[in-house]
Amino acid sequence: MALIVAKFGGTSVADIERIERAADKIACEVESGHQVAVVVSAMSGVTNQLVGYCGEVSKMHDLREYDVVVSSGEQVTSGLMAMALQKRGIAARSWMGWQVPIKTNDIHGKARIEDIDTVELHKRLGNGEVAVVPGFQGITDANRVSTLGRGGSDTSAVALAAALKADRCDIYTDVDGVYTTDPRIVPGARKIKKIAYEEMLELSSLGAKVLQTRSVEIAAKQKVSLQVLSSFEDHVGSDMPGTLVTKEEDIMEQELVTGIAFSRDEAKVTILNVPDVPGVAAKIFSPLADSNVNVDMIVQNISTDGKATDMTFTAPKNELEQALAVLTKQDFLKKSKIISASNVAKVSVVGIGMRSHAGVANTMFETLAEKNINIQVISTSEIKISVLIEEDYTELAVRALHAAYGLEETA
Amino acid sequence: MALIVAKFGGTSVADIERIERAADKIACEVESGHQVAVVVSAMSGVTNQLVGYCGEVSKMHDLREYDVVVSSGEQVTSGLMAMALQKRGIAARSWMGWQVPIKTNDIHGKARIEDIDTVELHKRLGNGEVAVVPGFQGITDANRVSTLGRGGSDTSAVALAAALKADRCDIYTDVDGVYTTDPRIVPGARKIKKIAYEEMLELSSLGAKVLQTRSVEIAAKQKVSLQVLSSFEDHVGSDMPGTLVTKEEDIMEQELVTGIAFSRDEAKVTILNVPDVPGVAAKIFSPLADSNVNVDMIVQNISTDGKATDMTFTAPKNELEQALAVLTKQDFLKKSKIISASNVAKVSVVGIGMRSHAGVANTMFETLAEKNINIQVISTSEIKISVLIEEDYTELAVRALHAAYGLEETA
Repeated sequence: MALIVAKFGGTSVADIERIERAADKIACEVESGHQVAVVVSAMSGVTNQLVGYCGEVSKMHDLREYDVVVSSGEQVTSGLMAMALQKRGIAARSWMGWQVPIKTNDIHGKARIEDIDTVELHKRLGNGEVAVVPGFQGITDANRVSTLGRGGSDTSAVALAAALKADRCDIYTDVDGVYTTDPRIVPGARKIKKIAYEEMLELSSLGAKVLQTRSVEIAAKQKVSLQVLSSFEDHVGSDMPGTLVTKEEDIMEQELVTGIAFSRDEAKVTILNVPDVPGVAAKIFSPLADSNVNVDMIVQNISTDGKATDMTFTAPKNELEQALAVLTKQDFLKKSKIISASNVAKVSVVGIGMRSHAGVANTMFETLAEKNINIQVISTSEIKISVLIEEDYTELAVRALHAAYGLEETA
Repeated sequence: MALIVAKFGGTSVADIERIERAADKIACEVESGHQVAVVVSAMSGVTNQLVGYCGEVSKMHDLREYDVVVSSGEQVTSGLMAMALQKRGIAARSWMGWQVPIKTNDIHGKARIEDIDTVELHKRLGNGEVAVVPGFQGITDANRVSTLGRGGSDTSAVALAAALKADRCDIYTDVDGVYTTDPRIVPGARKIKKIAYEEMLELSSLGAKVLQTRSVEIAAKQKVSLQVLSSFEDHVGSDMPGTLVTKEEDIMEQELVTGIAFSRDEAKVTILNVPDVPGVAAKIFSPLADSNVNVDMIVQNISTDGKATDMTFTAPKNELEQALAVLTKQDFLKKSKIISASNVAKVSVVGIGMRSHAGVANTMFETLAEKNINIQVISTSEIKISVLIEEDYTELAVRALHAAYGLEETA
């Protein structure tokens, strides 16, 4: 008998029929003797509509009221899910964020969970009652509703699993797991059976939109075993239906490279002739951070003459304009030339195995060279290598790398 | 300076544009120096959709979960309304039922308000902050969300006005007041400036759907002055823009007859040859009440032979089938004949003035006789006379009576 937190995303509770199907999955777990807490998102489309209403009223609305409005979608789903479970003869009730309570800080619109009271929940779960908790929402010390930011229901689920000391946190979604790369680009992409938290973090922040990054961070910190699986498939009799995100130690056969991630949402800015003096990087990037430009890769070449250097960085495409506006206002860059491009993509090779193996980077560079793909920027961490290339070559690069590291499905 | 509770119904907050218009009206009151608490309904159509979802999941759903689902509509509107007020430079915040708190009993789906804590609200109102309260919802002693039944937002508004000891409770709706009868039938129908609670109760329960009956009951009991007015008209400079529902003593010129109400939602059941023994009425109507048939008019003729009599009653059209099913099951009616008709309408003349004036009933009977309209059933109370007639004659009867009592607009 295990304690399981099961989270269903927006597409998995998109209408009553899908809520019923999700309820069937929970009923299976209950019949297997497990204790189950369910976390639900809003029915797909609902949150966007509510966010739209707030924007219509005012661009600069009070985030406390925004939270009151947008948290209602999950409230609806949780009531409906409790009803659907009861219809199956399962004791169930909904628990709003303020009823649990799920305490958060008071940063409305992107609050962080601080504490979840589990005494009553544990008692109910122990009596065989399923707890249905709306994702995305909590309550502040001021007794006001808060929300965790978009995709926050994953975070709710993982935090609840951690607080309940659950044996597993199942994230039901519209894909059946995490793949070695996007199967729409590489049809032979393979479902990853087990992946380490660190790898998942790199993959999720690099564009594989399966799990919200923050939820993986919490899972890693609290050692919550996360399972990503499809709500549209029947898992009965399947031993390991999705992808398990877990501790590195729990993964027996560590692959050298786990997956290839990519993001087309990149823009590149190069500042030519930057004064080569201490503190110049801070002078460039502080105002960018203040303007909420999310700078990602940063490359600074060494100065050849000791007086001036070049600096290149990347940022999301839709923040390029803002970045350029900020930079052209800086007095110390008066003599610099700023050039930018948005036809770039970032391709990354991720794998914990590369820590202990040389040659991973070299394989990447050689593979791209063979295909005549020019590398514009390189950035590395312990477990990933990212390169910036011309956007048109994205698919070609991903396919070539996927093959080069032997990630294809083996028949 | 007054303390005003202003309630906006579903059509008055149907979309962002209308919420903005409602916010303008509140802004006017605030600028006049008044303290304002706002009660809002769900955007029109939303509650029906949510109720529909619950029905889709299960016909026999848990009403506690139903309340979680359907209360969300008002939550959304209250957040949006607070934002719209803030945009106008007015301090405002939303207060969910559980935040105020608005305590109700635990009859989920049709809870009754037991207590409203006004300490914090009074403090905030005193500081010039507008309180936006979602109608229709409250919280039980078990800390669960409750709702007051359809149309409950009127009740929320009146109860809040009573608790706050407000000077006035303004009910903004899609009509500009209470009329002497339905203007769609009698174009010369006149807006009533002042009406007594008792009259309004008769009118609202008889088919004039302007105010929820329970809200008028509470207003009468707690002596809350209710004003019904249109949210689509500009009332600036208007002394008495709608209809004031108030104490009888506050109405100087009491009309003999205040209005003509009618309802086509009637069905008639006659039981012929009912045993004329004590207790027979109870034996007929108890099982009907147990089956939730809302019996309205009841007429029993005197027995001519001392052995058997006839009994006629009316009920809503959609409960006729249920009523007949219950009656045909009764053993003691085995020898009776049950006949029914659903092509009937109830027309009522209402007015406090008739208490002290004879002849009101006679005028009604003569007027209908002149038009050759047959009266099937008569039922009277202190301040109203109702007759059941063939449905086809409804408009004719209403027009003739409206003229006979001199209720037309005088040029």
